[in-house]
Amino acid sequence: MALLLHLTGIDEAGWAKGFGEAMPDYRVVTRDDSFDPAEIEYIFVWKPEPDAFAGMSNLKAILSLGAGVDALLEHPALPNVPVIRFVDEELTHCMSDYVISQVTMHQRLFTRYAAHQKAKVWRQLYPPASHEISVGIMGLGVLGTDAARKLKAIGFTVNGWSRSAKSIDGVEGFAGDARFNDFLAATDILVCLLPLTDETRGILNMQTFKALRTGRLVGGPVLINAARGGHQKEADIVAALNDGTLGAVSLDVFEVEPLPRTSPLWELDTCFITPHIAAISNEQSGVGYFSQIIADHQAGNGLRNIVDRGRGY
Amino acid sequence: MALLLHLTGIDEAGWAKGFGEAMPDYRVVTRDDSFDPAEIEYIFVWKPEPDAFAGMSNLKAILSLGAGVDALLEHPALPNVPVIRFVDEELTHCMSDYVISQVTMHQRLFTRYAAHQKAKVWRQLYPPASHEISVGIMGLGVLGTDAARKLKAIGFTVNGWSRSAKSIDGVEGFAGDARFNDFLAATDILVCLLPLTDETRGILNMQTFKALRTGRLVGGPVLINAARGGHQKEADIVAALNDGTLGAVSLDVFEVEPLPRTSPLWELDTCFITPHIAAISNEQSGVGYFSQIIADHQAGNGLRNIVDRGRGY
Repeated sequence: MALLLHLTGIDEAGWAKGFGEAMPDYRVVTRDDSFDPAEIEYIFVWKPEPDAFAGMSNLKAILSLGAGVDALLEHPALPNVPVIRFVDEELTHCMSDYVISQVTMHQRLFTRYAAHQKAKVWRQLYPPASHEISVGIMGLGVLGTDAARKLKAIGFTVNGWSRSAKSIDGVEGFAGDARFNDFLAATDILVCLLPLTDETRGILNMQTFKALRTGRLVGGPVLINAARGGHQKEADIVAALNDGTLGAVSLDVFEVEPLPRTSPLWELDTCFITPHIAAISNEQSGVGYFSQIIADHQAGNGLRNIVDRGRGY
Repeated sequence: MALLLHLTGIDEAGWAKGFGEAMPDYRVVTRDDSFDPAEIEYIFVWKPEPDAFAGMSNLKAILSLGAGVDALLEHPALPNVPVIRFVDEELTHCMSDYVISQVTMHQRLFTRYAAHQKAKVWRQLYPPASHEISVGIMGLGVLGTDAARKLKAIGFTVNGWSRSAKSIDGVEGFAGDARFNDFLAATDILVCLLPLTDETRGILNMQTFKALRTGRLVGGPVLINAARGGHQKEADIVAALNDGTLGAVSLDVFEVEPLPRTSPLWELDTCFITPHIAAISNEQSGVGYFSQIIADHQAGNGLRNIVDRGRGY
């Protein structure tokens, strides 16, 4: 029996070497190796091909490199076995680093000072204190919870919005569609860390932006999206930045990636673009995490961090 | 007996109104009022004139609006009475907000991404995780201690350097001149929150920059100065940014303020300028703090937060 690595556009051989060293007593193969599909118990995937799972009659679990599984769940021939999400402390840590850096940049009115510097203007505009600013986090999974706790620790007021009610110390929780507008009305800086599902696709649109609180940040409220490009309507973001509905945005994800050179987002002084690097899956922690999941499962224990296909994450 | 407000270039009348309301039973005057210098027990100052203290034979204390008292201590006719520093929770909080925003901006390689965005280039350069970066804080007073604790809480490795040894949980302390180079060699992002004294004047110079750790941040180590312009040699900063000794800097203070339009700092893409607004003294908390100090003193208790003139802070 074996683990198959099926990683498109990623250093498959490097990961195979890592798994080989972590699991010396279990067979690890890549698509370049000779193997019988029936011997594959676990398949570790990133952007699997349409025939990725063909003939795998003994498959026990699909291991997903990405923390988001939206694309994987749309695979036309996904076998009916548990899909295991990557829950990675290092990835969580990096995501919070990104969120804190963007939240504090906007809280401190970076856009304004950059414009003043360009014009060589010395003007003492006072940024609000962190406790005067409410950060609203959409999605209170592992990533959202860690970001919320850290933003709270450095002084921000933090609100959270999630499908079902979540309790995080010192964070006001808003649950479900019924509370979405209340959540937005209490938010100066909106941070999207949602999973991409049918319910959340396109949720970052003009109607959402218009419902955010105004008056606390010079220029207008702020959007930060580090989840999926599918959450955002980029035409609405451009319009909202141009008409002042939004003061500034930080985007790490885009409807189409790489972001086309024709996108007007590139040239907006109030838009901060990073190329989908907010949080990356680290090879070392990935090997450690998934090899432990396989070892535990082989020892007769249950699988963990299984995706709920009904919810979509 | 009375409190005199002597605030140059600041809304003196606004502060007087605040003190009047906070201390209804004690006389509060400004320079526009008629009063006898001999009746002044307390003088609240910002940039006092040369004759500010003339005739004040009953002066008990000088209250300083600024947290830094370097300029005040050089006043040519400073009476030999206690000088009280402003220790303000809100000011401390704002300073930590500034420090965190600048530290995380540089940790996340903002300069690089901004350059890529300008060129419409999508390039996945991975920033280091916060725990891989050492922030070295010069000065572990109230401001440095708060910044150190918060940077620690969000995951950074934090070192501190101070004249005498300080113990902060989870922060490696380096004390005195003998350990200065060890401190610098362990620092990727240098944050100056020192008081300005004869010993610290000009301490941010090329020799200091060259002693910082390299290799962790793409572009080079980073300097953040939110203390006093007198700490830095701006010609050295420009040279260090140009020759790669420093990767980027954030400066809130300058040798001459406002920063002259002729300064080359304005035009450097790797220099982030703010106009001495990292932390400002808030009127409401200032009135609360100093009126309590006066009330306690009038009730027969001792003064607190007295400047040590020998140390200079």
